[in-house]
Amino acid sequence: MSGRAPPIGVFDSGVGGLTVLRELRRAMPAEDFVYLGDTARLPYGTKSAETVVRYSLQCAAALVARRIRCLVVACNTASASALGALRARHPTLPVIGVIDAGAEAAVAASRKRCIAVIATEGTIAGGAYQRAIHRLAASARIEARPCPLFVAMAEEGWTQGPIVEAVAHRYLDPLFSCDDPPDALVLGCTHFPVLAPALRRVLPPSVCIVDSAATTAAAVQRQVAAGAAPGAVRGAVRWLATDGAERFARVGSIFLGEALRADAVEIIDL
Amino acid sequence: MSGRAPPIGVFDSGVGGLTVLRELRRAMPAEDFVYLGDTARLPYGTKSAETVVRYSLQCAAALVARRIRCLVVACNTASASALGALRARHPTLPVIGVIDAGAEAAVAASRKRCIAVIATEGTIAGGAYQRAIHRLAASARIEARPCPLFVAMAEEGWTQGPIVEAVAHRYLDPLFSCDDPPDALVLGCTHFPVLAPALRRVLPPSVCIVDSAATTAAAVQRQVAAGAAPGAVRGAVRWLATDGAERFARVGSIFLGEALRADAVEIIDL
Repeated sequence: MSGRAPPIGVFDSGVGGLTVLRELRRAMPAEDFVYLGDTARLPYGTKSAETVVRYSLQCAAALVARRIRCLVVACNTASASALGALRARHPTLPVIGVIDAGAEAAVAASRKRCIAVIATEGTIAGGAYQRAIHRLAASARIEARPCPLFVAMAEEGWTQGPIVEAVAHRYLDPLFSCDDPPDALVLGCTHFPVLAPALRRVLPPSVCIVDSAATTAAAVQRQVAAGAAPGAVRGAVRWLATDGAERFARVGSIFLGEALRADAVEIIDL
Repeated sequence: MSGRAPPIGVFDSGVGGLTVLRELRRAMPAEDFVYLGDTARLPYGTKSAETVVRYSLQCAAALVARRIRCLVVACNTASASALGALRARHPTLPVIGVIDAGAEAAVAASRKRCIAVIATEGTIAGGAYQRAIHRLAASARIEARPCPLFVAMAEEGWTQGPIVEAVAHRYLDPLFSCDDPPDALVLGCTHFPVLAPALRRVLPPSVCIVDSAATTAAAVQRQVAAGAAPGAVRGAVRWLATDGAERFARVGSIFLGEALRADAVEIIDL
C-alpha cells in the first residue's frame, strides 16, 4: 500500500464534538481526520429524531464524498437517533457513535449498578443511553436529567466558578441527594467534558464521572488499527463547518483545547 | 367588505417571538394571527447573516402562502439581517421588525442618551440596534453585550432566583459599574422580557428597561388600523412550527404567558 491511509471522518452538530476529536488525536496522533461541524443547524439536541436523522445523513454524505475510511458520530443526539440509518446508507463503512462507548464505561465504573446520565433534552427523551446501559446491565438503576444550560455555559467559556457550580447544584442535587444515590455520572453530551472539574466540586466524592470521548477513541482505534498511519509525524485535520468560521474557531478552541484558526475552516453547504 | 380581514403573520426562530405575539394580541385582541416558529433551525442568533436571510425568506413565503396582510418579524436576529431582503421580495406587504421599535423606545427612555443593548451574539455583532439608535440620536453612547445564557435560562423557565441574578450580574455589572452608566437597557432579544423582573433586581434603580414587544405592537396597530377586525370576539391564532410540537407548546407557554396545546401546533416543512 502506498501513500497515506484515508482520513477518519468525524461529525457533530457544532463544536462540542471537538472534545471527541481531541481524544481521537491523543490516541492516534499520526492519523488524518476530517471534522465537520454542522454549525448552521446546531443544536441537534432540541430537534426531533426525524430531523436529526436527515441532518446526520447529509453530514455523512459530505464526509464520504471526501473519501473517509471510518465515520465517528461525535454527537450524542445524532448517535442516539441516527446510527441505524447511517449504517443502512453506508453498509461498508464502519460507523462508531459515542453512546455505546459511554454506556460501557459507565457500567464498568458503577459498582452499585446505579448510574446518572446528563445530556441534552433530545438525548434524554430518546432514551438511547438508558437502553444502551440496560443492554449491558439489565438490572441497572438509571437517573436521567437533561441539562441544556450546561451547553450554553460551555460555549460561553464559563467552565468554572460560582455560577457554573450553582447551576450544577440545581441540576445534580436532586439526582444525588436521595437515600441510595448513583455512583457514576455519564457526561452524555460532548460539551460537558470541559465542565468536568466544576462538576467534580459539587458531586459527592464517591461518584465517578464518565466521559465517553476517551472510550470512543479507544473503540475507533480498535476499528482502524489495521490501516493505521505510521506514527512519526502528527496527522493533519481538515476543518469543515456549515456556517460561521470565526465562531467555530473561537468557541471550538475551548473544546479542542488548542488554538484553531478561522481561516483554516472551510464553509460547505449540505 | 364582507368576512374577516386576513390574518397578521408573525415569525420567529422559535418561541421567543411569542412575547411579541402576546403584546400584539393585547393591543389588537380581535385580529387573527398566524405564528410560525422555525424550531427546526433555531437559534438564528449564532448563524451568519446570509443564512438568516435565507431562512427568513422561507418563513415569509410560508406565511404569504397563507394570505397574511402584514408580516411581523418577531425575531431580533432576523429583523437585524433580513428586513431589506423581505421587503424586496414582498414589495406590497407591510413588513415590521422589532429593532426600529426597540430603538425608538430606548431613545425616548434615555435622558442621558446613553443606552445599553443586550441581545444574542448575532444581533450584537451585526450592529443593527446600534445603527437604529444612532439614526434617531446620532450622539448617543451605546454599550452592547451579547448574553446568550439568558436565552437558555428563559427556555428552561429559570426566570427568577439567585442563579439568574448571578448570571445577570456577570453580564450587566461591567456595563453599569462605570463612572457614567447608561440609563436605559434595551432587551434586544425576544426571549428576554420573561427575565425582566430578575434584571430589575440587579440593575441600578435609575435604569429604564426597554422591551420592544409593546412598541412593535403599537407600530403594527398603526399599520393595520384601516382593515382592523371588529372588536367583539377575540381573534384566533393559527400555530405553525418546523419541528417539535410538544416542545413548542411546553416552552412556548412560558413566553406567551398562557397555556398552549401541542395538538394545536401544525408542523410544516420549509
